[in-house]
Amino acid sequence: MRISELARRSGVTTATIKYYLREGLVPQGELTSSTQAQYGDAHVDRLRLVRALLGQGGLSVAQARKVLCVIDAPGDDMFAALGAAQSAMYDDADTVDESPAHELIARAGWVIDPASPEVGQLARALAALADAGFVVPDGVMDAYLAASSEVSKAELAHMPEEPGAALRYAVLGAILVEPLLAALRRLAEQDASARMFGSSGE
Amino acid sequence: MRISELARRSGVTTATIKYYLREGLVPQGELTSSTQAQYGDAHVDRLRLVRALLGQGGLSVAQARKVLCVIDAPGDDMFAALGAAQSAMYDDADTVDESPAHELIARAGWVIDPASPEVGQLARALAALADAGFVVPDGVMDAYLAASSEVSKAELAHMPEEPGAALRYAVLGAILVEPLLAALRRLAEQDASARMFGSSGE
Repeated sequence: MRISELARRSGVTTATIKYYLREGLVPQGELTSSTQAQYGDAHVDRLRLVRALLGQGGLSVAQARKVLCVIDAPGDDMFAALGAAQSAMYDDADTVDESPAHELIARAGWVIDPASPEVGQLARALAALADAGFVVPDGVMDAYLAASSEVSKAELAHMPEEPGAALRYAVLGAILVEPLLAALRRLAEQDASARMFGSSGE
Repeated sequence: MRISELARRSGVTTATIKYYLREGLVPQGELTSSTQAQYGDAHVDRLRLVRALLGQGGLSVAQARKVLCVIDAPGDDMFAALGAAQSAMYDDADTVDESPAHELIARAGWVIDPASPEVGQLARALAALADAGFVVPDGVMDAYLAASSEVSKAELAHMPEEPGAALRYAVLGAILVEPLLAALRRLAEQDASARMFGSSGE
């Protein structure tokens, strides 16, 4: 198909497609003349994926390029590839005191590489809560730790077996499941408060 | 204290403090001459809160202003105030098909106002997953729903009783706990995969 048809089917404008092509987020089409290229169904899928990563996923173009690069050529080492994709999302990290994060990980009893970028992510989240004067009660933090463990076990149990598919699942899950969980938590809160206070809803 | 001392204690530069003052995110100090103002501890707290909302919270200046406005003057109706603060975070929403979101809410059995902006948030999160060709297995979605319910119940059980404190807790929780949960989920995944595959960690 031509670029106009690709735009129609993907819901991404022609100008934006050209931008993604220039930025290397979407592979070039097959040239059929010096000014025209043909695109296939894989391009439609790729455009939707790019839109999801840049939109709901909240990635920058540079971050999305790194994540797609890992998904496209994961290599043999799943752990290394996942680490590379995840570290692509942390390139703008400030340094903060990581000791509260390490204490929390110890409390959860989790086996974590202390150098992994998620420790910094946790440290920054805890610092932001502290900055806002927001104290998470122990009972609530315990619920967060338990829920995180349960969710991760379920995700891992349903991970695809084929390594490339598993990697894609893990990377996209890390990026795109977060908005889903955020929405679910807010809705569950609305339900819980409607039941407790008998207001709103219905 | 003077603005230079305020900058030192809050960790926010003088130029940024002046910007926040102009944007109405931080209340003006008390003028002691035509060119000097005095600031108090409340300003230090406020600056840290603003930094958390704009940084980890990911809010725009306009969104942060609305959220702070609700926290500062919540009025008598907690539900209305919480709704106002939450809708401040959705002002850039695209419209998407909401039927998958309503189906999922029905499956969870939650009591939700169908007009609440979180339904749109859920619909956009589901659309992004669909765009990325990412199918959440039923068993994983069930784990997400159960975890969201458990987390919300724990949060509600520990909600402060004083209405102003409760509102602040709910609003900041919605914004600032999300990065915390995202970090915890990624760490729990790392722990779960280390245990399953016996790699990484330690």
